[in-house]
Amino acid sequence: MNIEKLKANKSFGGETAFYQHDSEITQTKMNFSVYMPPGNSPDGCLIWLSGLTCNEENFITKAGAQQYLSENNMMVICPDTSPRGLDLPEEHGSWDFGSGAGFYVNATTEGYKQHYKMFDYISKEIITVLTDNFKIDNTKISISGHSMGGHGALILGLTLPTQFASISAFSPIVNPINCPWGQKAFAGYLSDKSEYAQYDACELIKSNHKHPNPILIDQGQADEFLEKELLTDNFTKCCSDNNQALIVNYRDGYDHSYYFISSFINSHLAFHKKYWG
Amino acid sequence: MNIEKLKANKSFGGETAFYQHDSEITQTKMNFSVYMPPGNSPDGCLIWLSGLTCNEENFITKAGAQQYLSENNMMVICPDTSPRGLDLPEEHGSWDFGSGAGFYVNATTEGYKQHYKMFDYISKEIITVLTDNFKIDNTKISISGHSMGGHGALILGLTLPTQFASISAFSPIVNPINCPWGQKAFAGYLSDKSEYAQYDACELIKSNHKHPNPILIDQGQADEFLEKELLTDNFTKCCSDNNQALIVNYRDGYDHSYYFISSFINSHLAFHKKYWG
Repeated sequence: MNIEKLKANKSFGGETAFYQHDSEITQTKMNFSVYMPPGNSPDGCLIWLSGLTCNEENFITKAGAQQYLSENNMMVICPDTSPRGLDLPEEHGSWDFGSGAGFYVNATTEGYKQHYKMFDYISKEIITVLTDNFKIDNTKISISGHSMGGHGALILGLTLPTQFASISAFSPIVNPINCPWGQKAFAGYLSDKSEYAQYDACELIKSNHKHPNPILIDQGQADEFLEKELLTDNFTKCCSDNNQALIVNYRDGYDHSYYFISSFINSHLAFHKKYWG
Repeated sequence: MNIEKLKANKSFGGETAFYQHDSEITQTKMNFSVYMPPGNSPDGCLIWLSGLTCNEENFITKAGAQQYLSENNMMVICPDTSPRGLDLPEEHGSWDFGSGAGFYVNATTEGYKQHYKMFDYISKEIITVLTDNFKIDNTKISISGHSMGGHGALILGLTLPTQFASISAFSPIVNPINCPWGQKAFAGYLSDKSEYAQYDACELIKSNHKHPNPILIDQGQADEFLEKELLTDNFTKCCSDNNQALIVNYRDGYDHSYYFISSFINSHLAFHKKYWG
C-alpha cells in the first residue's frame, strides 16, 4: 500500500512517525502514527485503538510507551478513530458520534455505510500496512485500546481470534448495547438492530466467540464512566459463564485519563509480547 | 500562599495535578502543574520551565517523566510561561512574544512591567509555593527547562546559585542577545539595552556568575533551531573560558520536540537528584 510519512521524530533511539494513506475501505485519506524501535525490525506490533474524541496522536504523545517499546523491540501503530474530511449528516455535531467516534463498526446507515467501516479498516487495511509496509509477521500482531478503543480491541480480537495474538484494554466499553454511548453510536451507524450483537463484546462471548489467550483489562475505580458507560462487571460475568479466561485489574483511585494508561501501559506491553513467541 | 487545585489525576501511585493562584508579582492569576510522588514527601523538587507557545501542561503530559519521579520520590513543578488574561499591546499577535513567551525576565517596558515579571515570579513566588505549600526543603530545589525555558533555567540558576541546587537544560537559548527570538523578546520587554546582559546566560558567565555544580545540557543535532537560535557552542566557549563546569550531550538525529526530551529526561532527573544530598 502507498503510505506517506508526514512527520518523524527520533525517540528512544527509534522513531515516532505520522503517516497518511488513501483508504479503499473508507474512501478517504486515513492517518495513523507508529513507534518503530531502533533497528527497524520489531518482534511484533501492537495495534492501539483510541477512544472518543481522540485521533492518531493521543496515545503516541501521552502514554509514555516509547521507552518500553524501544527497550523491548516492539512496534505500536495507532490508527485514527474515524474517517475525516467528510461532511455527513450529524457527523460533526457531537463528540460521541461521527468524526472521532467511529466505534470500530462497519456502518450500514445511509451516508455512513460508504465510509465509516472502521472494523474492516482495522482488520484489513491496517493489517496490510503492518505486514506489507512494515514487514511485521502476521502472527505477531496484538490489539489493545482505551474506552471506545478498548471496545474495538475486544470485538476485533474476539471476532478474529486467529488474526490477533492477544487482546487487552484500558477502561473498555464492554457492553455498548446497554450503555448510552453505545446505543447512540449503534443507532446512528447500524440500520437494523439485528446487527448490534456482532459489535458487542458481551454478546460475542455469549454467542461463543472466544480467544485462546486470556484477555487483560485494567480499569480505574475512580473512573467517572465506569458505572454508566463501561459496565466492566457485565463482561466479567459473561467470560466467567462462558469459560473465556480474563484478567481484570481494578486500580484504586485511577480515572479515565491517559495518566491512568501511562501508569500501567508497560504491563500491557509485556503481556502482549509474551504471545509473540 | 493560597493555591487552588483545579484538577488531579492519580498517576504512578502519586498525583499529577493542576493549580491556580493569585500572583502578587504578575498581578494576574497564574497556573502551574505538579507531579507529587506517592507518600507526599518528596526528596526535593525540580522546577521545569517550558518553551515558546507552551503552558503548564506540555511537560506534564508529554515528557513521560512520572514513572521516574514516582520511583525516585521526586516532585516536579511546571509553571506557565507567561501571565494570561491580559490584553497588552502586541501581547497576542505573535507566538514568540507576549502570552506564552515571557522569556523569564522582569519586563521594564510600559504595560509589560506591571505583569511580565517572570524572573521574580519563578525565583520568589514559585519558591514560596514549594517551601510553604508543598513543604519542600529550600536547599533541594533544582531548575531545568526547554528552549526558552532552558534559557530561563540557565539565567535563574546562574544568578541565584545558592537558591538552585543544580541546573540543566534541553535545547536552551544560551545567548538571546545574539539570536532573533531573544532580540525580539528583549526589545519588547526591556526598555534599555543595558538591561539585556543580566538575562543572557553567556553574558552572565562572562561577568563571572558561576554555579558550584556542573551544568547539564542535552542538545539534538537535528534540531532545526540549533544554528540560528540556540547557539550552544557560544555557551560552551564562555564556560570553558571562565571555568564553569559544563556537560553538553549532543544527540545525533534528535530534534527540538518533546520526543527528544522524553528520551533523555530520566538522565536529567538523576543528575538533579544527586545534588539533593
